[in-house]
Amino acid sequence: MSETSRQIPTERFEARLAACREAIGECGLASLLLSVGPDLRYLTGFVGEPMERFTLLVVPREGPVSLLVPRLEAPKAAGTPLVSAGAARVVPFDESDDAAAIVADLLRSQAAAPIGVSDRMWSMHLLRLETALPERRFESASAVMRELRQVKDGDEARLLALAAEAADHTMDAISAGSLADRTESDVSREIRRRLIDEGHDLADFAIVGSGPNSASPHHDASERVIRAGEPVVLDIGGTRAGYASDTTRTVWVAGEAGIAPEPEFVRVFELVRDAQARATTAVRPGVPAEQIDAIARSVIAGAGYVDFFTHRVGHGIGLEVHEDPYMVAGNSTALKPGMAFSIEPGVYLPDRWGVRLENIVMCSDSGATVLNRSSLDLRVVRG
Amino acid sequence: MSETSRQIPTERFEARLAACREAIGECGLASLLLSVGPDLRYLTGFVGEPMERFTLLVVPREGPVSLLVPRLEAPKAAGTPLVSAGAARVVPFDESDDAAAIVADLLRSQAAAPIGVSDRMWSMHLLRLETALPERRFESASAVMRELRQVKDGDEARLLALAAEAADHTMDAISAGSLADRTESDVSREIRRRLIDEGHDLADFAIVGSGPNSASPHHDASERVIRAGEPVVLDIGGTRAGYASDTTRTVWVAGEAGIAPEPEFVRVFELVRDAQARATTAVRPGVPAEQIDAIARSVIAGAGYVDFFTHRVGHGIGLEVHEDPYMVAGNSTALKPGMAFSIEPGVYLPDRWGVRLENIVMCSDSGATVLNRSSLDLRVVRG
Repeated sequence: MSETSRQIPTERFEARLAACREAIGECGLASLLLSVGPDLRYLTGFVGEPMERFTLLVVPREGPVSLLVPRLEAPKAAGTPLVSAGAARVVPFDESDDAAAIVADLLRSQAAAPIGVSDRMWSMHLLRLETALPERRFESASAVMRELRQVKDGDEARLLALAAEAADHTMDAISAGSLADRTESDVSREIRRRLIDEGHDLADFAIVGSGPNSASPHHDASERVIRAGEPVVLDIGGTRAGYASDTTRTVWVAGEAGIAPEPEFVRVFELVRDAQARATTAVRPGVPAEQIDAIARSVIAGAGYVDFFTHRVGHGIGLEVHEDPYMVAGNSTALKPGMAFSIEPGVYLPDRWGVRLENIVMCSDSGATVLNRSSLDLRVVRG
Repeated sequence: MSETSRQIPTERFEARLAACREAIGECGLASLLLSVGPDLRYLTGFVGEPMERFTLLVVPREGPVSLLVPRLEAPKAAGTPLVSAGAARVVPFDESDDAAAIVADLLRSQAAAPIGVSDRMWSMHLLRLETALPERRFESASAVMRELRQVKDGDEARLLALAAEAADHTMDAISAGSLADRTESDVSREIRRRLIDEGHDLADFAIVGSGPNSASPHHDASERVIRAGEPVVLDIGGTRAGYASDTTRTVWVAGEAGIAPEPEFVRVFELVRDAQARATTAVRPGVPAEQIDAIARSVIAGAGYVDFFTHRVGHGIGLEVHEDPYMVAGNSTALKPGMAFSIEPGVYLPDRWGVRLENIVMCSDSGATVLNRSSLDLRVVRG
């Protein structure tokens, strides 16, 4: 999992830290406290598992940057790119130390401005910090981190493309194989194994929704047996070198008997495909994120299915599978070159079936670069 | 990932909820708010990915229990055991709704007692709740959830044993194979693939620390090439049907040349093994958790290596890989039958090498039941 730090040059982390500290001031914060997770990884290259022990990057507006870690993580922390570069120091603590008190000491001489905490910090840590620093106000660090993270640099774009390619290979292999008479769980396990074989660190999710389960957008994978003559929604992804993949295809299981889909299914499939394509074509710098959602929605509304498109059309992607910017009504954020996000309209007819198609795209100077290259044609699975 | 709910009978979830509501009152809380994570899964059987959208189980001391979910998760939520049983209702919200305001409405008629939030709730959600309910105080829900979750029932014990068995098979396969001249990352990938083949949902971690990297307790896996004539610490695990595995073995890579370890390595290995065994023998109901740590530590201290045993001896395990009870100085919790935890002493000589051995054990009426069955002998890898 420490591959990211090998793939992103050390100077990049120093530049990110410099931009972060500037933004801390502009946002009127005194400091940021970032726990294990994507914000910490983005700024330092440090990868870890979130856990009950504190691990915190303390970034004051001015003065030394500290990476507070349990002593057993100190050797690993010392190898973090930002630390190796001399831009942050490791502050280890022992198992019986009060880590929140150490943080309070580090922040004691600061101005009383609010402290930004990473969105994914666990409440157990935030509650301890609130108790240790009762006079201070805590806010989301995302005012700072969102702006930095949502525009990807060249190395991040390359890593997202590699993750997408691995997911495409997995999707192609699964839909070229046999699905009928297998359980959703069995297919899900094959997907996760293939994602790891394709170089993923983690195979986070492999939604396999067959028949009526395809009408539940966030169905996982059950012991239901997939049958010929029904569709399957495959929504798969994970992380490769820290960067997320996420792609969805809806396939038709014809089986050996070659059962054809009902005409409405084919119509809805083409509708979703059209909505996906038109939203993709609309991507360019300056377009508000909500407009990408609105375009897909209007296509689906035009055919009378808008009540069955029950979610936003997309989410940003990077070190997290869901991150800013969100393609959703109410988000007027203007797209910028380097923003990466999903475009994934869907139509779900309760108790019948559903269709979703999802690609990751990147906003470039001139339009959308589509990172997923696997075909959007209706895949007919013979086995 | 929804396997847990199939393996735990529905009545169990109802019984857990009843015990939880009783404890809410005893702890002086008004209600619990549990986000996606182990607390939610334990009480309801609902599995999900934590994300930026709210998913919250609202458990007031009295009155209806609500599972607040984004609308696209409503079909999945309806199939949650606790919901199917009629003990909780699904409250869906739309993409542009203010979910925190809905929670505030649900809690408005309550007494002003503090609200307990799950330890793993993301700070972005807690901060929103604090803003939506400025007059209320938030505390950790663990006062309630810890007592419930740290004593495993028979089904949980069975699932932990199955997870341990899968990890043992993986460990045995890896140490029976070849390690020399491979990168740590390559071995780590093989471990993760094998864990999934053994039925794990998720292969969370596969620490491969070779040579001097073995002296870093929480090293991940790097591009370093493993060589003959050095030890490798393998610390591996993940989840199977929701329950965690976690086991560590330190192997010696003799290579084809059959290079023997230096005498001090063998001495330290036997010392760690002895500490692990003596701590295991000490497990029985009524013994304070900290005593398990102290016993292992005193063995290592007796040989003069205590400064190189830099972490607690163990952690509870269940739906989380690290959970209560912790075997650490200062934790006077008395062991009870059904508590499951790791016993994993280690000695780390900086820049040279380290040794750690870890089993998961369960406290029974009469002593420790050791869930990991793979050998604790020094494994000599010939390839």
